[in-house]
Amino acid sequence: MKVEGRWRRTIELADDKVSVNVLDQAALPYAIQWMRLADLGEVARAIRDMHIRGAPLIGATAAYGVAIALRHDPKSLDAAIDVLGATRPTAINLRWALDSMRKRLADVAISARTDAAFAAAAQIADGDVASCEAIGQHGMALIKAAAERVKGRPVRVLTHCNAGWLATVDWGTALAPIYKAFEAGIPVHVFVDETRPRNQGMLTAWELVQHGVAHTVLADNAGGHLMQHGEVDLCIVGTDRTTRNGDVANKIGTYLKALAAHDNRVPFYAAVPSSSIDWTIDEPSQIPIEERSGDEVRFVYGHGADGKPARVQVVGSASGVANPAFDVTPRRLMTGLITERGIAEPTRESLRALFPEHAA
Amino acid sequence: MKVEGRWRRTIELADDKVSVNVLDQAALPYAIQWMRLADLGEVARAIRDMHIRGAPLIGATAAYGVAIALRHDPKSLDAAIDVLGATRPTAINLRWALDSMRKRLADVAISARTDAAFAAAAQIADGDVASCEAIGQHGMALIKAAAERVKGRPVRVLTHCNAGWLATVDWGTALAPIYKAFEAGIPVHVFVDETRPRNQGMLTAWELVQHGVAHTVLADNAGGHLMQHGEVDLCIVGTDRTTRNGDVANKIGTYLKALAAHDNRVPFYAAVPSSSIDWTIDEPSQIPIEERSGDEVRFVYGHGADGKPARVQVVGSASGVANPAFDVTPRRLMTGLITERGIAEPTRESLRALFPEHAA
Repeated sequence: MKVEGRWRRTIELADDKVSVNVLDQAALPYAIQWMRLADLGEVARAIRDMHIRGAPLIGATAAYGVAIALRHDPKSLDAAIDVLGATRPTAINLRWALDSMRKRLADVAISARTDAAFAAAAQIADGDVASCEAIGQHGMALIKAAAERVKGRPVRVLTHCNAGWLATVDWGTALAPIYKAFEAGIPVHVFVDETRPRNQGMLTAWELVQHGVAHTVLADNAGGHLMQHGEVDLCIVGTDRTTRNGDVANKIGTYLKALAAHDNRVPFYAAVPSSSIDWTIDEPSQIPIEERSGDEVRFVYGHGADGKPARVQVVGSASGVANPAFDVTPRRLMTGLITERGIAEPTRESLRALFPEHAA
Repeated sequence: MKVEGRWRRTIELADDKVSVNVLDQAALPYAIQWMRLADLGEVARAIRDMHIRGAPLIGATAAYGVAIALRHDPKSLDAAIDVLGATRPTAINLRWALDSMRKRLADVAISARTDAAFAAAAQIADGDVASCEAIGQHGMALIKAAAERVKGRPVRVLTHCNAGWLATVDWGTALAPIYKAFEAGIPVHVFVDETRPRNQGMLTAWELVQHGVAHTVLADNAGGHLMQHGEVDLCIVGTDRTTRNGDVANKIGTYLKALAAHDNRVPFYAAVPSSSIDWTIDEPSQIPIEERSGDEVRFVYGHGADGKPARVQVVGSASGVANPAFDVTPRRLMTGLITERGIAEPTRESLRALFPEHAA
């Protein structure tokens, strides 16, 4: 996608070929800064502290993290996987990418492992791009169909958090159908949930500004009211982990929007690359929900009066805060799951039919 | 309720007996400032710009606004009512208080009107206090019953926005049962929704800190997840206007919490002084929803690093914003309405039975 007019990926191999450059999402959209990650500790910190975020990008970054660790110590495969695996608990793509690296590298001679690891990480990153682009194509069909229903005005799509380019290597998951529709000339307008406490909606808004896609930012509280009044045609969100039955863990607040969509008969889809599906679990209760620092609720970041990045303390120190980072939307509230192989119903059978290799 | 250790009301007649002092809620909780309102323009601005807010307090302030206007021009009854009536569209208490002032004053001789108006405004303010205290008593019974069910731990009550002392003349509506329970020694813990975009949850947290009531501030997105996990025993919210059938217009986002409560079988109550009931309407669509400035979404207020009130711009200028200030929770999602005469079911019959004088 475009950043400052130029096509970029969110993670790129650096010129030295042994480290990566990533766009610092903790600074965005108030500052555009690329960070170089050159050792295992830097990669782990970047994931944990959300300098990079978004389940698919976490997976690709962790894959490069393994390669970077091996370059410093070619025997450190298991240790690196342990360190990276402990950075974030909810996104399953992290485990998927690390398992994939382990499988590809365990039987490779130590002397050849580093090169093989960089090649494998590049494959995972390229695979994510291909998967997102395919999700974009399948999801675009939903927007196109909606455009035919509402003709004469843009299709209004509500999204929560950032499941865009920034959450992936390229294209995004929930935003990929929107970008594909935009490029195909289908008029689309995006309602962007602010997504407190981390305000990832500002990342979505920033992406949409960079691409010229029309959008409106909303407080997280507003989406239900808009749906009650027929102002949302379609909801598309991302996922951090999906059960094999189709329950979707995503950024905190997704569940509330799914309830409102269900109550108002607005179609509610998750964009689900198969790397986000946990084929080992059946029920929402099996997904660990990360509790993050209360400071994310207490402080809000933005631009100060001088145009520089600044923060204000919103919640006083005498008050307690809680900060669960994800919730799970039960499958009964999902209209469908947009995967790279097509749109599945939120059922085990439908997911199995698209991904028979996981049918065990 | 207590402010800095002293019992105060949110609106108090000033020493000159012809103006009022109100606590400036646009500055709270980052600064404690009392404002004197001495003419009609000042009162209207204070309401419109939310220096005072909360449906019951808007009503009481408007009543004093009429008295203050009459003091400057004893013939200005209708004009003052017109100016004040146009300040906020959703809260019905405003119309109720102005209608009440008109009825009490229209037949009073011009020479006696100003004194009569101050007396009538004081009666409306005292009536609000009595009504809130009665709501507190009736609502406390719900908390007490919950305490018996959950014994050994505090009753966990989720509230949205601020329907506390600050939203009324004293006690609050949704918070009155909590204060009454706290004073009766019933252990209670309050989950406080942040309530973007205006963050009235910070007003609730500030009140609870002043009173020593245990509480946790949450992003608006988090309440559904807590309810899914059995962490909320009861929801109590306020109302800006309630249809005679029991549909509740309240701060934007209330509907989403009501959906989550319904989905998880958590009782969901609104605290409804009868001054908030619009006896002329039947359906949600008849309630006008105020669209406020997008700047409320764009900017967030808090303490800066130097401890002084500060704001940051969160949403960039290149993005559109929308800011509907209220939504309507349909009666089917309400467990009951806590009125000053007892708890009603969300039905016309039940409300009529408690308020037969409005049965026409």
